[in-house]
Amino acid sequence: MSERAGRRKSRGRDAKRAARQQAQVQTTAFIDRNIPYFDVLNEESLELIEYNADTVLEEIGIEFRDDPEALSILKDAGADVDGERVRFPRGMCRSIIQASAPSEFVQHARNPARNVIIGGKRTVLVPAYGSPFVRDLDEGRRYATLKDFQNFVKLAYMAPSMHHSGGTVCEPVDVPVNKRHLDMVYSHIKYSDKPFMGSVTHPDRAQDTVDMAKVVFGEEFIQQNTVCTSLINANSPLTFDATMLGAAKVYARNNQATVISPFILAGAMSPVTTAGTATQILAEAMAGMAFVQLVKPGAPVIFGTFASAVSMQNGAPTFGTPEPSLILYAAAALARRLGVPFRSGGGLCASKTADAQAAYESANTLQTAALAGVNFMLHTAGWLEGGLSMGYEKFVMDCDQASMIEVLLKGMDMSENGQAMDALREVGPGAHFLGSAHTQANFEDAFYRSTVADNNSFEQWSAEGELDCAQRANVLWKKALNDYQAPELDPAIDEALLDFMTRRKAAFPDKDY
Amino acid sequence: MSERAGRRKSRGRDAKRAARQQAQVQTTAFIDRNIPYFDVLNEESLELIEYNADTVLEEIGIEFRDDPEALSILKDAGADVDGERVRFPRGMCRSIIQASAPSEFVQHARNPARNVIIGGKRTVLVPAYGSPFVRDLDEGRRYATLKDFQNFVKLAYMAPSMHHSGGTVCEPVDVPVNKRHLDMVYSHIKYSDKPFMGSVTHPDRAQDTVDMAKVVFGEEFIQQNTVCTSLINANSPLTFDATMLGAAKVYARNNQATVISPFILAGAMSPVTTAGTATQILAEAMAGMAFVQLVKPGAPVIFGTFASAVSMQNGAPTFGTPEPSLILYAAAALARRLGVPFRSGGGLCASKTADAQAAYESANTLQTAALAGVNFMLHTAGWLEGGLSMGYEKFVMDCDQASMIEVLLKGMDMSENGQAMDALREVGPGAHFLGSAHTQANFEDAFYRSTVADNNSFEQWSAEGELDCAQRANVLWKKALNDYQAPELDPAIDEALLDFMTRRKAAFPDKDY
Repeated sequence: MSERAGRRKSRGRDAKRAARQQAQVQTTAFIDRNIPYFDVLNEESLELIEYNADTVLEEIGIEFRDDPEALSILKDAGADVDGERVRFPRGMCRSIIQASAPSEFVQHARNPARNVIIGGKRTVLVPAYGSPFVRDLDEGRRYATLKDFQNFVKLAYMAPSMHHSGGTVCEPVDVPVNKRHLDMVYSHIKYSDKPFMGSVTHPDRAQDTVDMAKVVFGEEFIQQNTVCTSLINANSPLTFDATMLGAAKVYARNNQATVISPFILAGAMSPVTTAGTATQILAEAMAGMAFVQLVKPGAPVIFGTFASAVSMQNGAPTFGTPEPSLILYAAAALARRLGVPFRSGGGLCASKTADAQAAYESANTLQTAALAGVNFMLHTAGWLEGGLSMGYEKFVMDCDQASMIEVLLKGMDMSENGQAMDALREVGPGAHFLGSAHTQANFEDAFYRSTVADNNSFEQWSAEGELDCAQRANVLWKKALNDYQAPELDPAIDEALLDFMTRRKAAFPDKDY
Repeated sequence: MSERAGRRKSRGRDAKRAARQQAQVQTTAFIDRNIPYFDVLNEESLELIEYNADTVLEEIGIEFRDDPEALSILKDAGADVDGERVRFPRGMCRSIIQASAPSEFVQHARNPARNVIIGGKRTVLVPAYGSPFVRDLDEGRRYATLKDFQNFVKLAYMAPSMHHSGGTVCEPVDVPVNKRHLDMVYSHIKYSDKPFMGSVTHPDRAQDTVDMAKVVFGEEFIQQNTVCTSLINANSPLTFDATMLGAAKVYARNNQATVISPFILAGAMSPVTTAGTATQILAEAMAGMAFVQLVKPGAPVIFGTFASAVSMQNGAPTFGTPEPSLILYAAAALARRLGVPFRSGGGLCASKTADAQAAYESANTLQTAALAGVNFMLHTAGWLEGGLSMGYEKFVMDCDQASMIEVLLKGMDMSENGQAMDALREVGPGAHFLGSAHTQANFEDAFYRSTVADNNSFEQWSAEGELDCAQRANVLWKKALNDYQAPELDPAIDEALLDFMTRRKAAFPDKDY
């Protein structure tokens, strides 16, 4: 496995470490897709959206706010900079991206068996991100704490379907805003060995993330490899702010990956149509990705999309409805044509609880993201209430769905065993297959076994207390936390990380922004 | 709109009636798809399954049980009949089907505005079928009654997303088995004006269905047109029984449509692999459809598929898992290649209640059926507990999802208004679109508005009692039944139907089979 696949060549490495990794990589830690993508648009429609996005970039432009350095970089590259408004000659952004952005890249985990390849036919499933609240059946909804954050890192570590530890899996609001990024990054490293995301709320916090990664991976390794993928949201419509630009610059200059992600509540932050929204998404993502490539050619970037449709009745974001699905299918195809990895959300929903609404909405979103060909699927598990709340039961349910997506994307086994002609010959009309030799040989791995579904008879279900899905999930997350065992971490690294955190925390007074 | 599209030409009609219909048809009563199908298999894999299915038909064969006439018809057509085992020379079934089966057909409703076209790019959404139990939040699970049956006919009549009244929407177990078909057909006609399905539990009951349809549509009209679509399940593996064959013959000879549907709990009634199951489905469906074409060339037939994966732990059917989705995508493609309409299930689930399990499973199935290109989507709404129970709340939730499928299949509006470049120019960076002229002009129809989702703030949801999705659906179905108004029915027809029922019921003692 090359350190960095795609257009960008690997540029050397810590040979010892690489050899050690090579030896340990035994399982694929992500989904390698074996079925086609689903496209809703034909070539002509995709070209029209691409043309319109270039018109947006050329005529309307993008604002890069409060960041003179960014404006200077863009101007030097040939953009038309008017105050903070930046207009791009037709085709400029695409050319810059295609000249240097990798079509896929490896994000290294501290356990090399968990390394993920992001891009191409791979799908990496990632927990939900950013909720200030958590919810469980026992205590209902409450502000998230560092303890909750650690719990979700542990749950993601134990879930076979989660390929990634995520980032701000919930906001640890019991830690000051200007210090909590340290605890979050530390928790990802300490309680999991899966890859993780870094802080983006201030350039200094991005730098802290990189510095902590250096403690774990070594300075030299970091300079040559990507160990962190971070989420840079556009301030839609058509705006990037200094905070996000600052964090993006830090990560790019350190060779770390960024997701450039229009964050769109369609109808409020974009036009009230699917084609118009897809156009805006492409324009924003191209502008942001081109900027990153100008900062550091070859730094990994991911084309992000987050699209919800705003309710025209009350202005609230809605999820799992058909319009965002159409937008997502279009955006995935546009990213493939651009030749960069694609990110969107998995189990999105507006429901306040892990009820049928949550499940319908999440399943609709997850199916769409899977079939569209999302490479980096943020928010795959746990998301409730438009992202305001992270649900313990919801997390367990979504992980089960995520495992099913892996089976779906593997496709149909067309081997001789898969064709099963011997079984058909053996059993014949009117008999049953349960005892056949073919069934006996295959039943262990034959069909996906859900962790939370109850498929028993009504009578048995009734005798067991008529538990609903959320109640069963409640038992499962508690058992998982109870069974949790931390992955090994070199005590010297642990100590160095704690030392770094202590020094950084002491350097500033607590702040809530 | 031609009376019968596709290969089969319309053969004359009651001109007056047709003219009257023509005048009344104002809305399309089904979905006309505008996005591609999703295929998981490539050409080579599809050809392999077709080859294997022909091997099954040639080497293993299909049993046609307890129906000497069927065997005689098949023998005369060139099949190798050995006892009740019928083997078909390679390619024979396909040739027979392609020679006379229509690629699409009109099923007439008593209200011509509700006529549906089944086949091609159309999707017709149909309620669930066959449950002995019903469930609602107030009374839990109980045996279904005729009152429940009528309630579901009324609910389907009022649901914009249901294009069809269905068949045995639940079993009215308070009516004797040998008489309840009369009440079911009468209820479909009396309480709805959407198209419906007929009885298949005995050839005489199929004939009763046809005779009642004659009362409504007129003898001559029936002979020229399809007004009834009925469900003929194979007795998988590789078997058709006399009951189903008898009903199929009655419908075919009366020019009425049949769905020839392998009913498969994979692993028990088919091999424990997806490719093996798809092979068996194709073999069974081809044998059944070829038989129908031999009985009456040109009678409408639909390629049916019902596939669940059996739990290898307890033998229970499971739903919403990835393997049946793969089978469904394959079967839909195989039906298209054969050139006949395709039927599968919509909102299938194993859950006992309308909880998150039910919703995840139903959404997974519905998304798959929609993207695969199902033409006649049975079980779109209400299904619980593997079909043992019909849920009132579930019905309302599924209808909401079904409405979303209609929007999804319409695809992206690429018109100038859809492209929304004016909106992007008007609003520009950093502003919002809510007040823009384009939003104002489009917001009414812009985004799908869910009937059961709660997208309000946590605080508002909380103030309104923290109702979950099922509790909100409970309010909605009661309101719908309360608001229900029966469609007009000519009193003379009503009287004739009641008279027919009275005579038929008096002709036999009650029986429970």
